[in-house]
Amino acid sequence: MEDAPIRIGIIGCAMIAYKVSRAIQLALNATLGGVASRSVEKATAFAKATGCPPEAKIYGSYEALLDDPDIDAVYLPLPTGLHQKWAILTAQKKKHLLMEKPVALNVGEFDEIVKACEENGVQIMDGTMWMHHPRTQKMEEFLKDKAEFGQLKSVHSCFTFHGDENFLNSNIRVKPDLDGLGALGDAGWYGIRASLWANDYDLPKTVTAMPDAVLNEAGVILACGASLVWEDGKVATFHCSFLSNLTGPLTVIGTYGTLHLTDYVLPWHDHEASYTTTPKPVWDGRNYMPLPVDHTVTSSLPQEACMVTEFAGLVQNIKKNGARPDSKWPTISRKTQLVVDAVKLSIHKGFQPVQIVG
Amino acid sequence: MEDAPIRIGIIGCAMIAYKVSRAIQLALNATLGGVASRSVEKATAFAKATGCPPEAKIYGSYEALLDDPDIDAVYLPLPTGLHQKWAILTAQKKKHLLMEKPVALNVGEFDEIVKACEENGVQIMDGTMWMHHPRTQKMEEFLKDKAEFGQLKSVHSCFTFHGDENFLNSNIRVKPDLDGLGALGDAGWYGIRASLWANDYDLPKTVTAMPDAVLNEAGVILACGASLVWEDGKVATFHCSFLSNLTGPLTVIGTYGTLHLTDYVLPWHDHEASYTTTPKPVWDGRNYMPLPVDHTVTSSLPQEACMVTEFAGLVQNIKKNGARPDSKWPTISRKTQLVVDAVKLSIHKGFQPVQIVG
Repeated sequence: MEDAPIRIGIIGCAMIAYKVSRAIQLALNATLGGVASRSVEKATAFAKATGCPPEAKIYGSYEALLDDPDIDAVYLPLPTGLHQKWAILTAQKKKHLLMEKPVALNVGEFDEIVKACEENGVQIMDGTMWMHHPRTQKMEEFLKDKAEFGQLKSVHSCFTFHGDENFLNSNIRVKPDLDGLGALGDAGWYGIRASLWANDYDLPKTVTAMPDAVLNEAGVILACGASLVWEDGKVATFHCSFLSNLTGPLTVIGTYGTLHLTDYVLPWHDHEASYTTTPKPVWDGRNYMPLPVDHTVTSSLPQEACMVTEFAGLVQNIKKNGARPDSKWPTISRKTQLVVDAVKLSIHKGFQPVQIVG
Repeated sequence: MEDAPIRIGIIGCAMIAYKVSRAIQLALNATLGGVASRSVEKATAFAKATGCPPEAKIYGSYEALLDDPDIDAVYLPLPTGLHQKWAILTAQKKKHLLMEKPVALNVGEFDEIVKACEENGVQIMDGTMWMHHPRTQKMEEFLKDKAEFGQLKSVHSCFTFHGDENFLNSNIRVKPDLDGLGALGDAGWYGIRASLWANDYDLPKTVTAMPDAVLNEAGVILACGASLVWEDGKVATFHCSFLSNLTGPLTVIGTYGTLHLTDYVLPWHDHEASYTTTPKPVWDGRNYMPLPVDHTVTSSLPQEACMVTEFAGLVQNIKKNGARPDSKWPTISRKTQLVVDAVKLSIHKGFQPVQIVG
């Protein structure tokens, strides 16, 4: 007999929850158990707008969803400033936790969340969707190929999108009490994660924000970038912004090979995604002229549904087999948050280097 | 009657001169007048290896070429440390000057070169080949399109290539007395130029080297990067290295559109080159999902031959019509060198910001 699908409840009706609501419905091992908002009306409207299955319950408070024994796990897209409170409550109610990034306002808050998850034996995973696309696995294989790629030297990425006037005035991501990390937490998170990912999750030694950060009147970061330097000289740079057109290139350069893609955060298509690799060039008498090789990876599910599938699989394994929660995911989240915190500190110290202490 | 082709002599037999020798032969308005080296043997070998036309002369000294009245113009691929001496002598001999980048060890030296060119009424242009590819003109049109691209926000580029052990031990580009600017002058030059180009040649206000510079034992830069910030908040970053695989992405982000290409310094193909533009994305209920549009620009000549054609055309106009030398090219060279100097100074000041004074 097949395992019953994991019943995931959504707490909060943020825009990103529209995408993940659909992903939960696409994942074969998960089902949308219910939607909670601070009002029944809002939750009902969300359920209708996202085509929730009729059996999904509607809750007029977050607590009601957490108290429902029919819910196995919670997807938490609340503003970052509310993560600590609701993530800890979720864990205490023995519900597994899929939470949006940034995972917390700082690593100290996140450590409290992880402690609660460990004490209650629940899985925690953050919502960095691109990690779960099958393309990511294929790209990893290239980066680990010493003959084709060589040794990693540097990682360069951008993730930007253009917030309109309404966004810049009233979105939660620009409010100091809700998402004080602004573009750094929301968009820079991906560039930091990509830098760690390409470095096999080794932490950099030093993080220095670039002196080009743009803050709004309330001190929330609207655009910034940083340089990361590893003990052995590897480097990474990232740029993030709410003020520029949607753009997401990632370039990973080794001694022999290069990985390049233009859509690492949000693939252009749902069911296939591309990247290019460039082999070691050869001098032909006039030029060093290698040709890049295009690769396409197909996926029956969009990456957010791959994420839900992976999360629900871990939860099933815990529920059915008594497995321990996978510590890989909170470990990666924590390292990403550590670097986010260091960039923020560097900005506040006038772009001085900040040492990372893992 | 057609104008006679401009007779260009080459001083020095550097590797890059192989490519430009061929370009001179491909350009319809130029011809290879001769090759000078410090020995007749070396010049003869170069002429043979590059398939020089039989009428091209061989000179056993640079002075002999400069004294030949049959030579209209000089291509100068000598090490940067020798530029000032030989560029000024070239100008004094009333010969037009196409010189490799970086144009000088510092802007003071370059100002002396420009002064000599002005006093002698000769054209000067640097060897930044990609500026002359017809693709560059098409990309400029996109960047100037306020409806499609909007306002420029940031420019991000890398140019790296992997110098082997022999290169890192003995190439002129890593010798402090020959090319003291190392990777910054040789590879970073392109990223700085691209940043200025996208900014319509406005100079940045502040330049800050990233704390990831790698220097060899003699103090020559093998890898570095910098952040450039303009008065109005526009930003640029570049990374350059002799230690990583050949890689050359350029991303220019506006408020509405994005320009992206992977081979801005060296196009993958001689006769066609591509770039992508991404229009303003639209929310489709689940995603912001624009699709990038690929553009291909064909060119009957490789970009280095386009450069020679443009240079020889300016020289013909001076010779035939008594036109004044075009000041656009030395102005752009000078601005690029100013930023190169600022990055070097920032590195030497421990990665502190350096103000640019045009």
